[in-house]
Parts: sequence; C-alpha cells; structure tokens
Amino acid sequence: MSGFSDLAPLFDPRSVVLVGASERAASVGGRTLANILDHSDFRGTLHLVNASRPEIRGLPCHRRVADLPSAPELAIIAVPAAGVMEALRECAALGVRICVILTSGFGETGEEGRAVEAEMKVLAQSTGMRLYGPNCPGVTNINKRLGFTFSPAFKDDLRPGPIGLATQGGGLGRNLIQSVERGAGFALWCSTGNEVDLQVADFIHYMAGAPDVRVIGTILEGIKDGPRFLAAARAAAEAGKPVVALKVGRSEYGMKAAASHTASLTGSAEVNSAAFRQLGIIEVDDVDELVDVASLLARGRPPRGARVAVFGSSGGACALAADMVGQAGLVLAEFAPETTVLLAEKLPSYAALGNPVDTTTVTLTNPAVIEETLAAVANDPAVSLVMLPMPLDYGPVSQVVAERMAAAQLRSPIPLVPVWMSERTGAAYRHFAGAGMVPIRSLRNAAKAFRRFIDRGAWEAGRMPEGLGAGVPEGPTRTLSEAEGKAMLRGAGLAVPDGAVVRSEAEAVALAPRLGFPVAVKVASADILHKSDVGGVVLGLRTAEEAGAAVGAVIKAARAHQPAARIDGALVERMAPPGGQEILLSVSRDPVLGHVMTCGLGGVHVELLRDVTRRLLPVDAAEAGRMLRELRGFPLLEGLRGAAACDVEALCAAMAAVSALVEARPGEIEEIEINPLRVGARGEGAWVLDAVVTLRG
Amino acid sequence: MSGFSDLAPLFDPRSVVLVGASERAASVGGRTLANILDHSDFRGTLHLVNASRPEIRGLPCHRRVADLPSAPELAIIAVPAAGVMEALRECAALGVRICVILTSGFGETGEEGRAVEAEMKVLAQSTGMRLYGPNCPGVTNINKRLGFTFSPAFKDDLRPGPIGLATQGGGLGRNLIQSVERGAGFALWCSTGNEVDLQVADFIHYMAGAPDVRVIGTILEGIKDGPRFLAAARAAAEAGKPVVALKVGRSEYGMKAAASHTASLTGSAEVNSAAFRQLGIIEVDDVDELVDVASLLARGRPPRGARVAVFGSSGGACALAADMVGQAGLVLAEFAPETTVLLAEKLPSYAALGNPVDTTTVTLTNPAVIEETLAAVANDPAVSLVMLPMPLDYGPVSQVVAERMAAAQLRSPIPLVPVWMSERTGAAYRHFAGAGMVPIRSLRNAAKAFRRFIDRGAWEAGRMPEGLGAGVPEGPTRTLSEAEGKAMLRGAGLAVPDGAVVRSEAEAVALAPRLGFPVAVKVASADILHKSDVGGVVLGLRTAEEAGAAVGAVIKAARAHQPAARIDGALVERMAPPGGQEILLSVSRDPVLGHVMTCGLGGVHVELLRDVTRRLLPVDAAEAGRMLRELRGFPLLEGLRGAAACDVEALCAAMAAVSALVEARPGEIEEIEINPLRVGARGEGAWVLDAVVTLRG
Repeated sequence: MSGFSDLAPLFDPRSVVLVGASERAASVGGRTLANILDHSDFRGTLHLVNASRPEIRGLPCHRRVADLPSAPELAIIAVPAAGVMEALRECAALGVRICVILTSGFGETGEEGRAVEAEMKVLAQSTGMRLYGPNCPGVTNINKRLGFTFSPAFKDDLRPGPIGLATQGGGLGRNLIQSVERGAGFALWCSTGNEVDLQVADFIHYMAGAPDVRVIGTILEGIKDGPRFLAAARAAAEAGKPVVALKVGRSEYGMKAAASHTASLTGSAEVNSAAFRQLGIIEVDDVDELVDVASLLARGRPPRGARVAVFGSSGGACALAADMVGQAGLVLAEFAPETTVLLAEKLPSYAALGNPVDTTTVTLTNPAVIEETLAAVANDPAVSLVMLPMPLDYGPVSQVVAERMAAAQLRSPIPLVPVWMSERTGAAYRHFAGAGMVPIRSLRNAAKAFRRFIDRGAWEAGRMPEGLGAGVPEGPTRTLSEAEGKAMLRGAGLAVPDGAVVRSEAEAVALAPRLGFPVAVKVASADILHKSDVGGVVLGLRTAEEAGAAVGAVIKAARAHQPAARIDGALVERMAPPGGQEILLSVSRDPVLGHVMTCGLGGVHVELLRDVTRRLLPVDAAEAGRMLRELRGFPLLEGLRGAAACDVEALCAAMAAVSALVEARPGEIEEIEINPLRVGARGEGAWVLDAVVTLRG
Repeated sequence: MSGFSDLAPLFDPRSVVLVGASERAASVGGRTLANILDHSDFRGTLHLVNASRPEIRGLPCHRRVADLPSAPELAIIAVPAAGVMEALRECAALGVRICVILTSGFGETGEEGRAVEAEMKVLAQSTGMRLYGPNCPGVTNINKRLGFTFSPAFKDDLRPGPIGLATQGGGLGRNLIQSVERGAGFALWCSTGNEVDLQVADFIHYMAGAPDVRVIGTILEGIKDGPRFLAAARAAAEAGKPVVALKVGRSEYGMKAAASHTASLTGSAEVNSAAFRQLGIIEVDDVDELVDVASLLARGRPPRGARVAVFGSSGGACALAADMVGQAGLVLAEFAPETTVLLAEKLPSYAALGNPVDTTTVTLTNPAVIEETLAAVANDPAVSLVMLPMPLDYGPVSQVVAERMAAAQLRSPIPLVPVWMSERTGAAYRHFAGAGMVPIRSLRNAAKAFRRFIDRGAWEAGRMPEGLGAGVPEGPTRTLSEAEGKAMLRGAGLAVPDGAVVRSEAEAVALAPRLGFPVAVKVASADILHKSDVGGVVLGLRTAEEAGAAVGAVIKAARAHQPAARIDGALVERMAPPGGQEILLSVSRDPVLGHVMTCGLGGVHVELLRDVTRRLLPVDAAEAGRMLRELRGFPLLEGLRGAAACDVEALCAAMAAVSALVEARPGEIEEIEINPLRVGARGEGAWVLDAVVTLRG
C-alpha cells in the first residue's frame, strides 16, 4: 500500500491553473471560472489556459499549460475529453502537484475510456502528480469558501461547519449538502468521480488530519483499495473523528447497479458492515440518516450508557416518541427529585411530569414556561440527550416555542434535538435550523440516530483490521487433508483430539488403546470433502478391534464411492467429550477487504437463520468475545434455562488462534473452515472435530 | 356488541347548535363560531346558545339549549367543564342526535373527571344520543368544507381528497393533515379525544360506507372496544377500502405513555399486529409512513406480483434506489424489448437502459426526452409502479424535470412516485405536490411503502376475526388434568395417543398390552403442572410389567415431592411415533381483542428466538397455513436439506380444530396450551403429547 500524499494543495492552493477556461457562462470552463472569481474567497494566483483567446474576463490566457512560467500547485482540467491526456502530461512535466479532472467521457462510457484512464494512472504513478476525477464535479472547501467546481449550485450551499464529506457520486453528495436547509454545516466536500488515482480513502485520511473537520461523512458505492480504506479509517479512529458511512450495494440489485455505475468491486455487504463495526464507522441506511447522525456527533459526544429525555406538548407525539425510544432499545432517564419538583411547580396539574414530559398545550399559551422546564430537564444529571417532538407547524405559535427551546439549548451542554414531524416547514423549523439544532425529520429517524450516536459512545476500539490478504489472489489452490489441516491448527494452539493416520487395520489396533476410547475413524483423503456421505466415518468405537475393523470399512466404502480419490489411509482419533455446542468457525478471503472470520452456532442457526458474526482479521480474544455477543443464539453458549454454560473463553482463544495463524501467512492461507468446533462446558475447552484448510500456491 | 349508529348528522348536519358561542375571538366558542361562519360552507341552520348575550355577530342567542324551538341534529358543546353535563342533558331531552364535546377537563385530569365521563356514558346509553369527545378538537369534513372545530389551523389545511382519518390524539392527527404540503388530500378527519361514547371504530365503520372516502387512515393509542374495532375493520375490508394504521405502544415505554395519555387498555402489540394482518389492515411504523402508504393506495391498487421500475438522472441515486428495492424484497421489472429499443433511441449511449434507468443528466439539458422515455417505462406491461429518485433541488432545472414527469403521469395509469430526497423543497417539489403525485421523502421510505402497497395487493381475506372472548373475564379458573384436557382435545378432533388413567399397577398391567408398546406413564393430577420435575413421567416402557412398576413409581415420586396434590392415578399412553418436529400451539385471551392463537417450533425457536406466529380466532386451515409460512423456522417443517417433510396438512387441521373448539365456547375456555404437538412425517399426523386446558367458571 502506498502512503498518503499531502492534499493541502487541493483544498487551499496558493496557485491554480484552470485549463479550459471559457467565456461561455454555460460551459464547464465558464462555470468553474465564475465559481472561482465570483463566489470563492480565493486569494492565491490564478492562471488561465485557453488555446484560442488572449484573455477572459480581463485575465490573460496562456495557449497551453506548457507556456506557464512556473508550476501552479493545482490544475483544474475542463477541456474536452480528447485534450485531457495532453494537458495532464504538460502539467506533470511542469511539476503541478494535483490535477482535478472535471471532464467526463472516460471509464463510464466504455472500453476506450477505460484505456485512457489506465494511461492516467500510469502517469500519476510515474510522476507522483496526483489526479482527482475524472468525471467529477470538483472539490469544495466550504469553510474557506473555495469552489474548484463547475456546479452552479456551489454558491447556494455555503454553510460552514464541522462535517467533512467524501462521496463517489455527485448527486448523492449534493443531496447531503442541501441539508444546510436544516442547519447542518459542512467543512468541505470531495466528490471523487471515477477515482483513477485519489479515492474516498485519501480524503478520509486527509480529513482525519484537518483541524476544521470534526465528523467525517462518506457515501461509497465501491471501495477501490480495501487496505487503503482501512488505513484511512484507522487514521480517523485514532484522531477521534467519527466516520458516518452509507454503503450502496447491500442487496443484489444495489450491488449490480453500483458496480455498473462506478465500475468498482463492491465486495460483500456483510463483510463491509463487519469492517465498519470494527473501525467504529457508523453505518447508516440512507442519506438523511447520514446527516442525522453526523450532525448529532458534531454537536457533542455521547457518554457511555447515555439516557434520553422526551419533552413535548402533544401527548400523542410524546407517547409515540417514547415508543420509538423503546423500540430502538434506548433508555429513558429517571429524573432527579429536584427536576420533578421544578416541573410540578411550573406545569399544570394534568401535565405528565415523568419522562416523557408532556407539558400539555400550556406551552403554546404561556411559552415562557418552556425555557425553564426544558433547561431543568436538560441539566438533569441523568439526561444525556433530549428529544423534542414537534408534530405540527402552528405558524407564529410554533415559532415562539422554537425560540424558547433554542434559548434552553444555550443553557445546556447536551444536545436538544427537535424532531420536526410535519411536512410544513415554516418559521419555527427555520429557527431551529438557524440555531444549528438540525431538526431530525421523524421520531423514528431520531430514535435510530440517537441509538447510533449512543452506540458510538460505547464503541471499544479493538485491534484494527488491516486488510490481510486483500486483492484478487493468483495461482492454484490446494486443500489439505483433514489430518494435515488439523495438524496445522494444532500447531497454531487449537485443541485437536489426539489421533494419527493409519495405513492398516493392524496399525489402528495398536494405536487406538494409546489414544483412549472411544475413538472415531474417518477415511483420510484430501479428495473427499464430505466423508460421511460416502460411508467414510465411524464414531464411538470402544475397543481396539472395533477400531481396526472400522479402518477397513471406511477405506472400502470410500473406494467404492469415489474410485479416483487418493486415499492416505484412515484417521483414528480419540473422541472429544460429548455435549456442549457445535460451532462453525471459518476464515475466508474478501477480494476487497481481505481475510474475514465468520462464526456461528451449528445446525439451524447458521444454515436456516443465518445467525453469524463476522470480522476482518486480526481478531483477538476480546474482539472474539464481542463477536459472539452479537449472535442471537449467544444465550445458548451461556447456558439457557439452567443448561451448563459453555467454555466461551476457550472459544474466544480458539478464534484468536485461528486469526494469528492466518495473520502469520495471509498470502498462503486461502480459507479455513472448522465445522464443527465443539465447545464443551466451562473448563472443557473447544475442540476441532473437523476442518478443511485451503492453501494457495 | 351494540350496532353502529348513522353518523351522517356529524359530518353533514342540516341543523347545528353551538352551545357556548362566544364573541371573544381567542376562546373555544369564538374560534369554533369563526370556523363555521367564516371558513366553512355550512348551509344548514345554525343556532347559538350563550347565557349572557342576546346576539353574537348578528345572530340571536338562546339562553340555554332547552329554549330552542326544536332539536338540531348536532350540538357542539364549548362551555366550561362545569356546565357540560347540564347542556348535554338538555340536548338529550330536546332530541339532539349527536353532541361534539370540545371542552376538556374530564378523564384526562383525574378521578373526578372520570366520574363525570361515567355520567356522560350513562346518558348516551339511556337516551341513544351519541357523544363525540370530550377533550377533542372537533370534527372536520374537508370534502364538504365543514369545520365543527375550534382549531385555528382548520382553514389552512383544506385540500380535499380520498383519504379519511380517524385519530385519538389531536396533535398526531393534525400532523397527518399537514401533509397537504406534499399533495395528500383528505376527505375528513375525526379526532376522538377521550372517547366516552363514539370511538375510532365508529368512524372507521362510517368511512367504510362513505362514498367520498377511498382509503382510511388511523392512529390508535389504545382500542377501547376490541370486537367493535374488529367489526368496523371487517366492514372496511368488505367495502374494499384499505385501512392504514399506526398503533402507538409497541414498546413498554410506548405502552405506558399511551395508557397514561388516553387511559385505554393497550393490549399486546403482537396481538394487535396479528389482528391487523388478518383484517388486511396495513400497519405502519410512523406518521409519515401512514401518509406514504395511504396516498399510494389512493392513487391505485397494486396487482398481484407487482414489479417496480426505477427511473432517474443520478447514477448514485438510482443505485441506492435499486438497493432499497432489493432490501425491501421487491422485484425490479424486466422491460419488454420495445421499451429498451425506445430508451436506446432517446438516451445517450452511456445511459443505463436496464432497470434502474439512469438517463444521465441529459434530462437536465434536454428535458423533452423525459416525458417520452418515462411514459414508455410506465406503460411497459411488466411495470406496476415507478420510483423516481430526485436527490436534489436544482431550482428551475428541477422544476422543468418535475413538469415533464407530471406530464408522463398523465399518460400512464400506474402511479409514478417521485422520491424527494433533498431537504430543499422548491418549485419542483411543489409541482409534484400540486399534481397530486405526493412525493415520498426518502428512498428507504419509498421502498417500504411500495412493499406495503404490493403486500396489500397480495392479501388474501381469510375468515375474519370476531374478538371471541374479548373483555376482562370474571369468575375463578380451573385447570384440567392432562387426561381431561386431552379428552377434550380428542373430542374436538385432534389426534391424541390412546391411553387412560389407571388407579393401580394392576390396572396398568392389564391396560398396557391393549394400547400397544411402547407406552408412557405420567402421574395424573391437575395440581401438578410440571410432571417431569417431580419424577412423574416415565417414557419408553416396553412391557406390561414395566408399565405397572412405573405407575407405582410416578405416584410415589409425586407424593414425595408434592404431598398436598390431589392425585387421580397415572395416565398410561401408547407413545406416538418418534421423530418429526415438536410444535408449541396455544390459545390465550387478549383482554381487548379476544382469543389469540400462538404457534411456533419447539426448543430454541420459541424460547430463544421468539419465532412465533399469531392470529385472533377463528383460524381455519388455510389461515393456519399462512401462519406457518410466516415462521422463520418454516423450512424445517418442509424438510430442510433433504430431511423428510412434516405433515403440515395435519398440523393445519389441528390448528383449525383447536380454533373451532374455542369458538364453540369462548366464554368457558380460558387457555389451551399444547406443548408439544408432535408433527410426524407426511401422513403420520400431528399428535398431542401434552396439554394444559384452563376453563373459567
């Protein structure tokens, strides 16, 4: 993985050249020039390149990039597609640090375009000049009011703030920016287009270090370079900056559409989500939710075990809010006695003073009471977050309510979050937006956002994943026999029943008593994957003679069913203690993000209910413990209804050992499937009963 | 259950008296008068009652109701709480048909208020005069422009339409009405307040028969009278009018808050949802979703197996839309060749012509292409519904797009549904709203609404539930012994293993061979519920002598553990065939909605995963089949991975037989729990292995 470049020249360049500057207001070059000259606070040097005009808007034009006296830090390329490569080469020759390629008509149009993009990539790699785009709307630094973009909407959405955005598509990115309407403020926005060189990951990394960005939002259709993305997300986590991500492609339709739109590998949605969880990235389901959560995080950080208060003047809306809070698994705070005393003093006798607080409509007729009662709730020591359901817009009446609530916000350090439920968005709504209180648009969304906000507060950083073994691997694979695979796992520290491969009945008769009874006998062949299906397994043998006879039987049965299989003999094994829970534990390779561990309870849990937990490697024992607690079936491991608790500690140790094994040679190990791993009662350990290991090369 | 009254006098009265008319503009009486005189098209006779003024706004006032020359159809009561009962009595004496009680200060304020409400109820029952309220904002007939309400917002939200609303709280109801902002149109709105007499159910029933209502929306905090609600919902189903319902109280917090707000029994959320499903009521999770689904249903009815098209100009938004479609389990239509040919002709080569159709931004620069291509998609025979993702507001550019899309809607019979994702809601949004295309506010919500819309199209009306045994029952209960319970179930047609209660070892020795082996022996006592826990069960007995000895043993063990228990002897039973799946099948009584059947697979499925299906009775075999198919574990009954399929037909028959048994005597049967019901392989039947039946009285 290559390192990350300094991207300051992109966001705050001292000098810029606009290649393809135009006097035509509707053209890409013309609109970009207008954004720089008329709508930006750009104080550096601006050069223009236009092949046919000596000057535009009073500024002299160079005929070509090569004519510039010295290299500007940033070049913005707005010439037609046919001229882009030449302009880029001249930029590279001159020593330009970064080029923004606005022009479209490359990879998104077909094979020919992809060939040009390959040339761009070679140019970037060979010269060190970084490329942004092509086929992108450009870059926007809102906090510095700089727009290197052709978007005519640039000037409309300039509310500075702490949220930085990196998106692939322009449409969804602009959608996020338009939430300035509800008071969300943005530091900058990168919309990376076809990503021939710089990717979303580069901008997440940049924002991790940018002092004016406190929260990072991103929309991803595909991740081009998994380890690079993981490294960037690690940097954000280490800088204490939450990343809120929307990943398109969680259904088959979505994966297909995203792949055709961005031509990226989309990888598995489940693996993506697992990686996000490990990195503390907050995954959301839609664009509005991204803004909900990012805005909340920009307003404060949740303490562990944060509790919620609901405060409103509509009993129905308060009840619905409480319902949503409960359904999201949040906890309503219990007020301190002083709070209740104050509420009782200020509110009518028929108001609800518990939590939710239903002030009744007294707040509409006597709004002065709002500020005091709400401030008391917000300053109650048990409360970390206040939900303010606003079911309707009563015009000026609602406006006064909003003003009082905003005044209460000034008296409290925790976020008071108006939930604007009505379709009518008048002065009250605008007052909340203007006060930076960023109303959420439904109680359901608010509860969901609160939950994510609070979960982020409880996030424990484990060992961060590194994308072990990412990339589409080359070379043939080979599957180890059960005995070989188990030997490798035993070497890695896992508990494997004692046993050995025998070549004859006599060897088995000699071996079995040394192992101890009962023993199991299984045909030993790397060519036979489903040994039971061919009669290749006999369990529960209690004498040496039985074991010997079984060896002959399984070899014979296997030969009969699969004459071409290479048979090494039979594996004779002491059987593990009975009982306990069977676990499926595997590691496989995601092409984008690398090796991923999957774990679930055997039987219906994995097969029918798909109840599994996943993580990118490495997984240590603490992370393994967190994984298991995500399983719906976890109570079975803890001993449901008086059953004995399983040896969860040994299971976690086994998971960590498998991780360490793969970590030591990620290029070589393609896949490990332990099925089952039998976890006994506490103290009995976790035993590898069957395993398939696949190596590459 | 009492019948439903004719409520026409409430919605379109020929004569009205406003009791408590006032000249003060801010008072309840003054605002109500203004709504009738200034903002309504009321053409009937209006009488005013005011004790102290001879006239108001030029209309003469009567001093009291009793002074009126004849009975108006409708009385609106706006006097202070202390005067309400007297006014009501005079209305009843005069022969008024319905009274709307706007005044608050009754049940919601405490014990005293509840006592007055009890008086009101007695008055209504003894005179036949119906009461609406108290503590309510009144009633609004938007299609006739009649507002018998004190709400100053009445005049602002008068967009007529096909959706009728019945809500309990005023705040959430007004919230729905404010979605006129996105083009939703409403026929009428009842907000029923404390429901001393008329309830939401009465208005659902009224709307089922009202010609100008096509879709019914309701928000319920609690259902006062379960059978009445079920009867009203049945009437709507029979009239072919979908009901879209939001039920507050699906979490413990929500139940508590709703109960304290409306003082209704809230019942179990799971039972509510089951009843809704049976009645074809579409349950939604929030107020915005109620409007989404109701508006869609007002625009058309989905065919079975409806398929979706996505049409947009942002690749990212189209990909996200496809993702949401997939996640909601919807199916993207495959276009006919003619459609694809037309799209290829009209759109650029780099557009995506499949489904989703990504026109690319050509539609922004050449909007004429939209109407033709969108109409072609909408008229494709495979398409039943089109999603139009609109990620952002580009001002006048977006407006032209919206105009073209609305023009395409005029050329197509199916709903084209704009999804307005941006916070900015300018002219384009308003154009969609004005055209009645009711934009949905997120792709996620749109997919959810589409799913509900399409599911309603696939809804099969079974036998409708009737609220058997609803109401909090009186009198003591008694639990039958296993043998008695099983005898009752055998009588109802269920398969119960042959057996009988014996009083001695000798009787067992004589009986067992006649039953056939193996047999089971269980202590017979209605006082011992968990027989295995006291050593009261022995299974798998293969000889008469074993059976005899077991009888002595279980009786002895039971006596030792529970000396006070009355022991009838021991139940000796032929054991059912081994194998198959164990099922838990029960019927219990919900106080609001009556007897409900619960069914799930035994073991972890019910206990850990809460994988159960529920229905109100009656349940016939067809409905039982639908129930089972809702279980996540259903594939186990069908034979997962080559296992033998279970006798699902016998299971359905057993469920229907249990339902019929309770249906025959709902007052007497309190609860039946069959655990387990063992369902054998196809043809082997479903056997009652253990059962507890509880009777009342």
